[in-house]
Amino acid sequence: MPALDVTKRNLSFNSLGKDQSFPLRVWTQTSVPNQQNTQQDDAKKCCEEEEFDEVGRYQDFHTIDWLREICRNKLRHRQIYLRKFDSCFNRIRAFHDAISAWLLVLLIGLAAGTCAGLIDTTAKWLGDLKVGKCSTFFYMDKYACCWNVQLDRRKCPEWQTWAEIFVNLTEGQTYAFNYFAYVVGAIILSTLAAILVKGYAPYACGSGIPEVKTILGGFIIRGYLGKWTLLIKTVTAPMAVASNLSLGKEGPLVHISACCGNVFSALFPKYYSNEAKKREMLSAAAAAGVSVAFGVPVGGVLFSLEECSYYFPMKTLWRSVFCACVSAFILAHLNPFGPRHTVLFYVHYTQPWHLFELIPFAFLGMMGGLYSAAFIHANLAWCKFRKNSRLGDYPILEVMVVTLITAVAGYQNPYTRIGATPMIYELVKECHPWETNNLCDYMKTNANVTNPHDAPIGNGLQTAVWQLFVAWVFKMVITTFTFGLKIPTGLFIPSLGVGALMGRLVGIGMEQLIWRFPDCPLWSHDCHEGHSCVIPGLYAMVAACASLAGVTRMTVAAVVVMFEMTGGLRYIVPLMLCVMCSKWAGDIFGHEGIYDGHIGLNGYPFLESKDEYFHTALVDDVMHPRDNDPPMSLVREEMTIGELDELVKTTSYNGFPVVSSRDNKHLIGYLYRKDLILALKNAWAYSPNIDEDSVVFFTLHAPGVAEYTLNDRNPIRLFNVVDLSPVTVRVNTPMEVVVEMFTKLGIRQALVTHNGKIAGIVTKKDVLRHIAVLHGEDPDAILFD
Amino acid sequence: MPALDVTKRNLSFNSLGKDQSFPLRVWTQTSVPNQQNTQQDDAKKCCEEEEFDEVGRYQDFHTIDWLREICRNKLRHRQIYLRKFDSCFNRIRAFHDAISAWLLVLLIGLAAGTCAGLIDTTAKWLGDLKVGKCSTFFYMDKYACCWNVQLDRRKCPEWQTWAEIFVNLTEGQTYAFNYFAYVVGAIILSTLAAILVKGYAPYACGSGIPEVKTILGGFIIRGYLGKWTLLIKTVTAPMAVASNLSLGKEGPLVHISACCGNVFSALFPKYYSNEAKKREMLSAAAAAGVSVAFGVPVGGVLFSLEECSYYFPMKTLWRSVFCACVSAFILAHLNPFGPRHTVLFYVHYTQPWHLFELIPFAFLGMMGGLYSAAFIHANLAWCKFRKNSRLGDYPILEVMVVTLITAVAGYQNPYTRIGATPMIYELVKECHPWETNNLCDYMKTNANVTNPHDAPIGNGLQTAVWQLFVAWVFKMVITTFTFGLKIPTGLFIPSLGVGALMGRLVGIGMEQLIWRFPDCPLWSHDCHEGHSCVIPGLYAMVAACASLAGVTRMTVAAVVVMFEMTGGLRYIVPLMLCVMCSKWAGDIFGHEGIYDGHIGLNGYPFLESKDEYFHTALVDDVMHPRDNDPPMSLVREEMTIGELDELVKTTSYNGFPVVSSRDNKHLIGYLYRKDLILALKNAWAYSPNIDEDSVVFFTLHAPGVAEYTLNDRNPIRLFNVVDLSPVTVRVNTPMEVVVEMFTKLGIRQALVTHNGKIAGIVTKKDVLRHIAVLHGEDPDAILFD
Repeated sequence: MPALDVTKRNLSFNSLGKDQSFPLRVWTQTSVPNQQNTQQDDAKKCCEEEEFDEVGRYQDFHTIDWLREICRNKLRHRQIYLRKFDSCFNRIRAFHDAISAWLLVLLIGLAAGTCAGLIDTTAKWLGDLKVGKCSTFFYMDKYACCWNVQLDRRKCPEWQTWAEIFVNLTEGQTYAFNYFAYVVGAIILSTLAAILVKGYAPYACGSGIPEVKTILGGFIIRGYLGKWTLLIKTVTAPMAVASNLSLGKEGPLVHISACCGNVFSALFPKYYSNEAKKREMLSAAAAAGVSVAFGVPVGGVLFSLEECSYYFPMKTLWRSVFCACVSAFILAHLNPFGPRHTVLFYVHYTQPWHLFELIPFAFLGMMGGLYSAAFIHANLAWCKFRKNSRLGDYPILEVMVVTLITAVAGYQNPYTRIGATPMIYELVKECHPWETNNLCDYMKTNANVTNPHDAPIGNGLQTAVWQLFVAWVFKMVITTFTFGLKIPTGLFIPSLGVGALMGRLVGIGMEQLIWRFPDCPLWSHDCHEGHSCVIPGLYAMVAACASLAGVTRMTVAAVVVMFEMTGGLRYIVPLMLCVMCSKWAGDIFGHEGIYDGHIGLNGYPFLESKDEYFHTALVDDVMHPRDNDPPMSLVREEMTIGELDELVKTTSYNGFPVVSSRDNKHLIGYLYRKDLILALKNAWAYSPNIDEDSVVFFTLHAPGVAEYTLNDRNPIRLFNVVDLSPVTVRVNTPMEVVVEMFTKLGIRQALVTHNGKIAGIVTKKDVLRHIAVLHGEDPDAILFD
Repeated sequence: MPALDVTKRNLSFNSLGKDQSFPLRVWTQTSVPNQQNTQQDDAKKCCEEEEFDEVGRYQDFHTIDWLREICRNKLRHRQIYLRKFDSCFNRIRAFHDAISAWLLVLLIGLAAGTCAGLIDTTAKWLGDLKVGKCSTFFYMDKYACCWNVQLDRRKCPEWQTWAEIFVNLTEGQTYAFNYFAYVVGAIILSTLAAILVKGYAPYACGSGIPEVKTILGGFIIRGYLGKWTLLIKTVTAPMAVASNLSLGKEGPLVHISACCGNVFSALFPKYYSNEAKKREMLSAAAAAGVSVAFGVPVGGVLFSLEECSYYFPMKTLWRSVFCACVSAFILAHLNPFGPRHTVLFYVHYTQPWHLFELIPFAFLGMMGGLYSAAFIHANLAWCKFRKNSRLGDYPILEVMVVTLITAVAGYQNPYTRIGATPMIYELVKECHPWETNNLCDYMKTNANVTNPHDAPIGNGLQTAVWQLFVAWVFKMVITTFTFGLKIPTGLFIPSLGVGALMGRLVGIGMEQLIWRFPDCPLWSHDCHEGHSCVIPGLYAMVAACASLAGVTRMTVAAVVVMFEMTGGLRYIVPLMLCVMCSKWAGDIFGHEGIYDGHIGLNGYPFLESKDEYFHTALVDDVMHPRDNDPPMSLVREEMTIGELDELVKTTSYNGFPVVSSRDNKHLIGYLYRKDLILALKNAWAYSPNIDEDSVVFFTLHAPGVAEYTLNDRNPIRLFNVVDLSPVTVRVNTPMEVVVEMFTKLGIRQALVTHNGKIAGIVTKKDVLRHIAVLHGEDPDAILFD
């Protein structure tokens, strides 16, 4: 009686039962095994035959094996292309397969642009709704409502504050009423957002970038990029922004874009069924996220490349650019009342910068780096406290309290009362002679002077300086408590805001310094009386860039985002300088950016490809088991179903090496736990005549079937689920080589051999824990495998 | 009598003799071997002890092993940092080590910017010298000479043509005399360049990008990036450009930058002594090359990332941006007479594009793709012919003939008479009402019409169209024969030129079409009488981008270069569309860009990381030897010096596996041929009492020394040069995994094992030949290992 191939049976069953299309063909192809050249066939099959319904899927909170996924995709690709000329249907399928990447990035771009447009519009409307409403069309925000009277800019009778609508009050009472409405509005919005997030999509909280980065690094968090998260985050992000908390919509937009990428990939089996391929699309989606957040496609792509993505082949670069452009294009066309430029803060300075200004720019860079180091440490400490104390049990209450404080304290300062985005725009702008706001209130000693800066500060500016300083301190403190609340919280805008406030202050200071001491040799050559010399707005821009770069530890992406915003290469040298200073100053206190910090806080297994490994350990210092016992292994031809069931029940390993015999443990292959469990389940369900003592063998052909079929028990063949070419390293390989292999190949585990015999297993978790120990960190903080 | 450690002896000798600093310390550290835990120690030593003077160097025209180089660098890094606190000197050394990367990229940026400035100035001066000279200062080009009279722009008495200087001639004679001077000048310049290249630096010919790409991919071509190449290429590139051949200075600038990178890396042992680290700097240098060529730093970085580089870690990205910015900054400050914008063709269009224009843009993209496919095939065929025929023996004559044809034919057409760069600038410009050149000669039917385009073409434009068409055909043909001449020949500018000529023609056609049929539903909505509708200059820009993208197969970099040139995101959609169409159209005829084609033509072993491997082969189809004999191996404890000498003499393998015994060939390690030869040479030179029968062993401790020391012959220990952790793959590993490992880890060979025993070796050359066979190409075209 021939051996029963359980997996094959199961597969044919499955494929006939519910999913005829793909697995069936794979199996019929291999159903007549070639008797010659067995070893080679075996290995080919290994790669081909694992393609069935559930085998090869990953569990939640587990790491994927990039190499295996890439191998699976190549099999799929081969299958389709070999059959391309068989029939018209197959030809269409091949064509569909070829263009599906472009279709998918197009869809992602369209969706990301649309979501961003929706969020933008809703956030503005809700934000204004705290203050008043449009009497003509209630669904219009203040800008749209007053669109017709833009030219006048002063009076807009269509827009009414709540005090104007409901009651006739004195001026003081109006202020109090509006203040009250503002605070209550903010609390309602943020509480509603917190309730929605807690009730419907807990994953929709936070910025999402740490998790997106972890997922792109090859980790599975089911539901994190699901439709519910997409929906709830799209709904709650504008509420959170409108409640004037110190947060932005930029991080959440990256998460939302990634959700779009995941949701739409369900339409394309090529991407849905392959975790590595799916991540290529998620990288493109992340690029689209930043692209729509700021209107900077190239900056978005570089953000995805530098900060988010792990595996970024060249074709992904190209598709990311496409995706980012499509989304920015859509956003620009969805925004009928917006400015003509699609970038968030389009500024065009009329003057160049001077060489001596590199000194204050470097200072601002360093300040940005120091601020961000302090922020990262404080925020991580607070988040750790929240996690480990009872505070974490009351997320809604926490949101309410933070909103209350932010709104009550923020309303009294004009720079915190308006949203962070318009505030930053105010700060980075140049003062033109016709401008009348406080920031441009200089004492015009000479009416002929066209330059408003070349003068002592006026009363308005004096007030403004004081307000800016208060706003700066307040923003610094409150952002620390805001990032990590259980609502969508982005960090780009608050970081830019803190930086811009400081930069503007320093800029005004520089300007006054030059005005007071015009003969200082540093600037006497560049600055002349009656002519502009420094632009405080540029200082705000530079400091904003430094602060952003410090907090996120982006470098190139931060510079490119800022230079796309300023629309020119003219200021690239100051921007680069400040980013470099910020990075150097920040690195003194730790190389970790805020996102890496949060990844560590959550215990995700993220192997940073940017870090270098400089230690002398060998792989046998790191592998498990450490003692000289080889690891729990499956023996090729000797084990029984009972033994396997026992093994699965008593251990929690993610996979088992398959060895040649109990004594001579030559490595044959590797079997994933999940695949083994599935195969055993199927064996019990569909194989006749088996019991606990049935022999299982992991070879292609039963090597003497007769002796295993005693008592009418059929032997079970589990060859098809064994990976015959696991990555192996020799027992005396230095860890630096092993780390290189883990980072570059994206493998999940490597088998350690000694003269061909299995000596141990080293997993990604082992590597991460080893690195944590070397860095003096707690290795048990890495929770997942 | 204890075994003599030849390598150690040799090393101590060497280190005391000439280079005390580094190797000595490594050796003293390991000179007291730890008797316990030998295996682990062995492996650590393997990585540490191979660091001495000549071991680990590569031969000319050989591939480097990235993994090994990275490992060597980490050892060096550890050495320096462990000793950091030992003394003040070591502290300075560590600091120097830490900042050397930044110093080096700064130097490269400065040098690249300076070279570009020199080439720019010289090329302009030499180019104008063909036509005439400046009477006031002979070293000034026409633009500088006439600087004072720029406002008038018509007359510039300081600038005299040769005819004006030497003879008083009639108008016809003047034309003939100037024509003659132009042709003779061109031939003199190009011939001189060819003679210099042939005589002093043969590697200075061509664009250099294919070779730079190969070198960055991990190949050694000694002297290709040397000082002589740098000098000669810097001198000859302006001559070649000035001779008005259809070539550009952009490719050579990448080569020159890379030379600067290589030359300056000699100042920093960190980079000079490590091929992998050096290549990080060369990547940054390549970015600086494109940055100065066009004045586009971000585009340059993306060019380096997309087109040139192989191993591009994140920190290289950041340093590349810095290097590219520094070089662009220097160039801008070296160019006192240049325009205010540092980019090559700064254009600013006054109008947006319309949706219907996407149709002609897509058409232009496709045309660009088709042209580039034709160009690549024709140029490669011509280069192959040159290589295999007697034509290759007369490089100078060939240059003279091509120059003669180009000059004689080119002078008669105003668009080929001027250099390609001003021509492209003319073509991409918008026509303003005040412009009087032929390209803007429209019949102004209505004097009030502010837009010159909304009118039928005038006589001037009619002539121009005809001339553009002739220039287009001529450029297409002559570029095919020019690229590959034995002088510096860049391809960016000719590609842009061909594209711009076609684009302008199509643009003028579109414009007239709209003027003739204003009611066509396609554009009747967007175009109104009396208003501009299409900009022929934009068509030229789009088509230039398509042609550049097609020829070089850059995608993102081409778009970013063009969008940095146009200075805005407004035209990114047309540019992306045309690049995509160009790529798709070009891919029909082959995926290979011109640079990949030339790499293939020269037989360099370049493993393209962008290509995917989709076949089913296993590693034992590819490895050597193919039969069941295991490869030539060294046996751990049994071989004699004589046998080893014989082995080295009779074989040409690049390395030998070390196995446990003659019968039981368990893999122990790998020994590079070069290291073996060096060790044997040292053994003969410095070891007493050895002869041909002395036993060599490859273990840390002699396993019973007594029996090997018969007849007073000392055994020789060659343990230190053995790599104990070579990358191994199992015999049934699919080739797709092997290809992934070769591309991602950058290894040079992998040892194939079967149950721990050596079964074969697979080298990069084997992999490349295997891929060539699968693609139906000639595997023997891959010449080098």
